[in-house]
Amino acid sequence: MSTTTPGSTARRAHEGRVLGALRDGPLSRAELARRVGLSRTTLSETTAELLRRGAIVVLDTDAATRRGSGRPAERLALDPGSGQYLGVDFGHRRVRAAVADATRETVASGVEHYADDTPWSERLDLAFALIDRLASEHGLHFGELQAVGIGVVGPYGGRRPDGAPVPWARRSAPDDVRGAFADRFGAPVVVDNNTRLAALAEAVSQPESATDLLYVRLSDGVGGGLVVSGRIGTGAHGFAGELGHVSVDPAGTRCRCGKRGCLETVASAPAVLAACRAQGVEVHTLDDLAAVVATSDPAAEGVLREVGAAVGRVLAMAALTLDPDEVVIGGEIVHVAPVIVEQAAATLRYELHPLPAAEPVLVRPGRLRDTDGALGALAAAFHLSPLLAGYPHPEAGRRGALREVLPESLPPRLRRAQ
Amino acid sequence: MSTTTPGSTARRAHEGRVLGALRDGPLSRAELARRVGLSRTTLSETTAELLRRGAIVVLDTDAATRRGSGRPAERLALDPGSGQYLGVDFGHRRVRAAVADATRETVASGVEHYADDTPWSERLDLAFALIDRLASEHGLHFGELQAVGIGVVGPYGGRRPDGAPVPWARRSAPDDVRGAFADRFGAPVVVDNNTRLAALAEAVSQPESATDLLYVRLSDGVGGGLVVSGRIGTGAHGFAGELGHVSVDPAGTRCRCGKRGCLETVASAPAVLAACRAQGVEVHTLDDLAAVVATSDPAAEGVLREVGAAVGRVLAMAALTLDPDEVVIGGEIVHVAPVIVEQAAATLRYELHPLPAAEPVLVRPGRLRDTDGALGALAAAFHLSPLLAGYPHPEAGRRGALREVLPESLPPRLRRAQ
Repeated sequence: MSTTTPGSTARRAHEGRVLGALRDGPLSRAELARRVGLSRTTLSETTAELLRRGAIVVLDTDAATRRGSGRPAERLALDPGSGQYLGVDFGHRRVRAAVADATRETVASGVEHYADDTPWSERLDLAFALIDRLASEHGLHFGELQAVGIGVVGPYGGRRPDGAPVPWARRSAPDDVRGAFADRFGAPVVVDNNTRLAALAEAVSQPESATDLLYVRLSDGVGGGLVVSGRIGTGAHGFAGELGHVSVDPAGTRCRCGKRGCLETVASAPAVLAACRAQGVEVHTLDDLAAVVATSDPAAEGVLREVGAAVGRVLAMAALTLDPDEVVIGGEIVHVAPVIVEQAAATLRYELHPLPAAEPVLVRPGRLRDTDGALGALAAAFHLSPLLAGYPHPEAGRRGALREVLPESLPPRLRRAQ
Repeated sequence: MSTTTPGSTARRAHEGRVLGALRDGPLSRAELARRVGLSRTTLSETTAELLRRGAIVVLDTDAATRRGSGRPAERLALDPGSGQYLGVDFGHRRVRAAVADATRETVASGVEHYADDTPWSERLDLAFALIDRLASEHGLHFGELQAVGIGVVGPYGGRRPDGAPVPWARRSAPDDVRGAFADRFGAPVVVDNNTRLAALAEAVSQPESATDLLYVRLSDGVGGGLVVSGRIGTGAHGFAGELGHVSVDPAGTRCRCGKRGCLETVASAPAVLAACRAQGVEVHTLDDLAAVVATSDPAAEGVLREVGAAVGRVLAMAALTLDPDEVVIGGEIVHVAPVIVEQAAATLRYELHPLPAAEPVLVRPGRLRDTDGALGALAAAFHLSPLLAGYPHPEAGRRGALREVLPESLPPRLRRAQ
């Protein structure tokens, strides 16, 4: 692994252009030359290197002939069998991995379960075994992996003024997770909290990515995340998006954090079920709640509207702060009880009406389920790709980009290329 | 004005290195060579060009001799007479301009007043006359102006998905403001809302800049701004930081926005004075309030604590969303009645205690007064400097950087250099 020279930085930029152009579909060499604006010689050297490494392939020239072009032309395409990006989401009780090819299409994903007291060394072993299995089942090879994104539970990120990570960043996801992936794949690695990655995944889960997105997840607890100007908002101490601990009722139930009436005491799935029971609606699981919702029970509806209003008030404050183009409410319960999202949207619209927005802020339920962390990790990985260094991707302004690459997340051979 | 070639981009990067190194103080050519890591030839060409343009000067070589160095060495320094950056803040009734040299020290500032219905064409004339006066009074020349930052009242920024500015961005600060400055100075121009620029100015107003800062200003109204990962948070529609319209009392006073009990109805300077009067404390101006505060009047103290608590609750919600390292409360009233900041800090600390931050979030009054918009505009301009393109400034990660440069803010000769 030699030190990256300015020459190889330029080469990477050229490769980025070629791969970027081929993402839209196969091209002949002549078409490619027009698209990337490189000299014949440079283009020829660049494609030769990409062919050698298996990142691109030569398509059957007959295809061009059949389409009526005058003479057969060799067309180049991205190699769909080349795993280019890896997203891994370590949850409390499972690790999920997703692989995308150079076109950024997800080509494989899978999950492995573990007990929630499993040490990190075993979680890593399970993750690597899962990735090996995905590669073998789907005929993938990772020879030219561009980047790895990793999601972890709990606060992550944040820097002291001296540049050192804050202490709990180390605790909640040990440095060797980052290092283990960097060593194994020789690729840059980005790590972040998986709820924040879910926010990024929601932002890029549609053709027109949201650049500013506010995300709250109603689950066993209540967490959140934000995308600001296309990048994950991490915060100074790695706690950005802690919407679960905004007070909605100063005289309310005691929260596990010590305060009273946090949003989590009102809008987590267990809190919602308990509030229903307090109104005489006997529900103990989300399945129970689904059955009750199907009967249009007025007591349950009243509880769910109150929950939605509380969620809406918190999202409104956050939206007045951030001015997002999209607000997403995730968690299984919003699919069981859509009235929560409806009411939250109504409350939010009222609270935001002083802003003469050209279009109202879109409020919607999360469209991704358990895969959101892994897909967010993939989205994070896309933006780490060293191949794109020095060459703004056409979608760079719209696709959810990421917080800065921390230089120490890069293996030495790549550090200067970023 | 020839098109920028890759060669001149490299030259700019070299110039950026040299200017960056000289920002710490004068250096001999040998010291400079060690610091910037350029070849003798390149360094010599670069300094010759900078000397020719008057951006740097040769210091008296005797100085080096007197300091005991063995032989006289020619030392180079930044030219303090060269205005390199310009910050301009257009308020409702005045324009303020500030000029910084290549060391980023503010070397001149001044103000011109106008009626609040003055059209933009006249405001521009007044601003240019002010800048000319500053140049002549301080012996400044703008031959090599690097960048201009401009602050305006009202929402600014925000892009539609198709890249077009949202309609009110055009209304509140016409494009010709940007264009007029770009034409006159041949330098890149960045425009933003002046309260958001004030947030940036507060972030960089100290040796260790805040990377994530939350700012609220209690004035005739209540506005705010945020710095996220060192950049101004603009929002999807240019409304980020609208903390004045967060509800603090759903049954409260009707706000000019149409809602009830917005923070602005409780914590703007007129609202605070009115609340004092409602408690029998006859205050009509901030001077009256200062006199009453000096007597430790308990009724006034009670009102001010309630105001501080309301401000603290709103800031807490925003802080749980953003996780800032610093929270700043600006506006003249916080200097008249510091108990507002004290109480807001206490409320915020309570609301944030679930976050096990290594260090508590710093809450402080604004340290900049009416100059904050112009200084924020300057800070914005620092990060637009084309001389630094392609060369990460050593402080780039810590100094408050900016939202992306909009390519159309650059005059054609600079567009490719960014």
